[in-house]
Amino acid sequence: MNYSEESLQLHKRLQGKIETKVKVALDCKEDLALAYTPGIGAVCKAIAQDYQASFELTARANTICMISDGSAVLGFGDIGAESALPVTEGKAALLKKIGDVNANSLCIRSQDVEEIIRTIYLISGSYGGIHLEDISAPRCFEIEERLKELCDIAIFHDDQHGSAIACAAALENAIQLVQKEKETLQVVINGAGAAGIATAKLLYFMGYHNLILCDKEGVLHKDYKGLNPYQKQCLTFTNKQNKTGSLKDVLKGSDVLIGLSVSSVVTKEMVASMNDKAIVFAMANPIPEIMPEVAKEGNAYIVGTGRSDYPNQINNVLAFPGVWKGVLEAKATTISEEMKAAAAKAIASLVDKTQLQPDYIIPNAMDPRVVEAVSQAIIETAKIENVIRKP
Amino acid sequence: MNYSEESLQLHKRLQGKIETKVKVALDCKEDLALAYTPGIGAVCKAIAQDYQASFELTARANTICMISDGSAVLGFGDIGAESALPVTEGKAALLKKIGDVNANSLCIRSQDVEEIIRTIYLISGSYGGIHLEDISAPRCFEIEERLKELCDIAIFHDDQHGSAIACAAALENAIQLVQKEKETLQVVINGAGAAGIATAKLLYFMGYHNLILCDKEGVLHKDYKGLNPYQKQCLTFTNKQNKTGSLKDVLKGSDVLIGLSVSSVVTKEMVASMNDKAIVFAMANPIPEIMPEVAKEGNAYIVGTGRSDYPNQINNVLAFPGVWKGVLEAKATTISEEMKAAAAKAIASLVDKTQLQPDYIIPNAMDPRVVEAVSQAIIETAKIENVIRKP
Repeated sequence: MNYSEESLQLHKRLQGKIETKVKVALDCKEDLALAYTPGIGAVCKAIAQDYQASFELTARANTICMISDGSAVLGFGDIGAESALPVTEGKAALLKKIGDVNANSLCIRSQDVEEIIRTIYLISGSYGGIHLEDISAPRCFEIEERLKELCDIAIFHDDQHGSAIACAAALENAIQLVQKEKETLQVVINGAGAAGIATAKLLYFMGYHNLILCDKEGVLHKDYKGLNPYQKQCLTFTNKQNKTGSLKDVLKGSDVLIGLSVSSVVTKEMVASMNDKAIVFAMANPIPEIMPEVAKEGNAYIVGTGRSDYPNQINNVLAFPGVWKGVLEAKATTISEEMKAAAAKAIASLVDKTQLQPDYIIPNAMDPRVVEAVSQAIIETAKIENVIRKP
Repeated sequence: MNYSEESLQLHKRLQGKIETKVKVALDCKEDLALAYTPGIGAVCKAIAQDYQASFELTARANTICMISDGSAVLGFGDIGAESALPVTEGKAALLKKIGDVNANSLCIRSQDVEEIIRTIYLISGSYGGIHLEDISAPRCFEIEERLKELCDIAIFHDDQHGSAIACAAALENAIQLVQKEKETLQVVINGAGAAGIATAKLLYFMGYHNLILCDKEGVLHKDYKGLNPYQKQCLTFTNKQNKTGSLKDVLKGSDVLIGLSVSSVVTKEMVASMNDKAIVFAMANPIPEIMPEVAKEGNAYIVGTGRSDYPNQINNVLAFPGVWKGVLEAKATTISEEMKAAAAKAIASLVDKTQLQPDYIIPNAMDPRVVEAVSQAIIETAKIENVIRKP
């Protein structure tokens, strides 16, 4: 099927993938008196008296906002604010369908970090959470960090944390199969942008302590020129031996390759140079860093991609619907590393240990058990971490 | 019924009066490939190539945003951004129910005019129109005017123009009954805020050329101290004889009183001092400037209010659903005085001339003919005025 042409036609016909649904009766004057004036006067006053009531009496209770500035749309890069709307609408539709969480789809016509932060802060009182989408690195890190400080609701940049959770889930099961030690197995992450950095952080938090980050120029090390502050910070916990060289160089003798870049090319020979029972997650979309059949020729033991037409699809859709469902149900005000790790483990746990095999390390993204498992993990961990809004 | 308590309970139970509905199939991998990646790549690229395509390929086609800063919520004044959400959600629900137009509900946590304008501009690429709600005067005038200049979509401050259209519709029919001349009959508008000023402008545009504006201190005239620029501008076309004095003073010998204030009190004696066949629209909500039975004792011939429990309910709900439906269908980029006048006349025309009587000058707000008549009038006038987005 020609997905491009079919998708264009579908979008032209639908004029939007989400719409508004009315939850309240509006059929007679009595209905209007309750849903609108004079009845809502009391509702407005209740919120004026206690701002927290806005989470109980309005759609904030179960609505988030999917926001992009259009600076890193899919693999296209900076193509303009409105060009991100098909993505944010798509994510909103998936969130409602899978997680029964409501979402608005919003693009911001600015690439200025300060302006984006201020705009999102100013509208944040309308929502129970902010989902950032397709914002370029390293701007995305500052935007998310500063919003976390400013806002009293959870902030989640999916390109970072959705990718990290899905990768970590797949890796948790993959290492079961290869029976190697988290602490020591060597994980090479190719791509030191939003997804690469967030994945490194989450994997380290989860006990993977031998991590190496690469970008287009090769291994990130202490004398590498031009690193941004977020990449530099990664050097405090990755590449402890301060290795240098190319992706090809460090892959020799590595156990895991996680591809989270758009440009890199991994060859059969590079995979063949990895340790026995190599794990290769080639997540570049739509063309993976190496095609699964080629990776297998290079003797990869487990291969995962972002694609739906190969086994082991490692997809953000595994994570964000359950994360938001859990955050809103728990009334969580933040999403901690512990919560993300719990989400990853919950996804991994859905593959029965007796069924685990190289071509089945991760559940299907549309498996209805996923959203339930993830949201429960988020709720329980939010309670333990005590990041729940005070009533 | 205790509307306040019932409404609070209803809002607590519903947790929002609107929610998200998914319009696209998301049941299998094929569906995802079209609604999401890889299919949407082509949709994003089409918008990147021609920004106008965002109106055809996304929910912008039929979605507006209901926005308030919480500075003039109902009759309560400035009670905080989040306190406006029950209103913007209610309006969004009414818009969908009556006009089948989608709406997000948004509050902005700032009272700074520049910041509000910038924030709305930055998110305006997500919508087909911006509906401003419960923003205090005179800030609302500058915010609307500047946004009209900045944005390429229609901007509509309902407290101004919704009120003006509904009043004008009622007055068009009322003067038929009393058989007085538009040009000369004396109309006193009490309240020189958002609704009062917009109504004065629209009535003047529609041929009512003997208008007098009052506020709490009395008649607006050339030597009145402390007028804002928008009130001063009104003096270029109202109170041409430069009358002075109180509301009571100017009501003597007037033909029409339009009450669009919150604080004023009109007595039976004041109404009795008006000309024969006096028309009194007492729109203050929920307590009118004068109760209909008292106005009738003062010999008012026609009485209208904003209330649903008296005849002649002059309500914004008559106007905004049809206005937005028409604007989006016509792809109108602005809402001109001509379009508002056409909307008012369309509402008035729904009361059959043979049925017109003092207690029936305006159709019921929930009458399904209203939205159709208004939207058709908007579409036709937008075409004539040539304010339609170029393809």
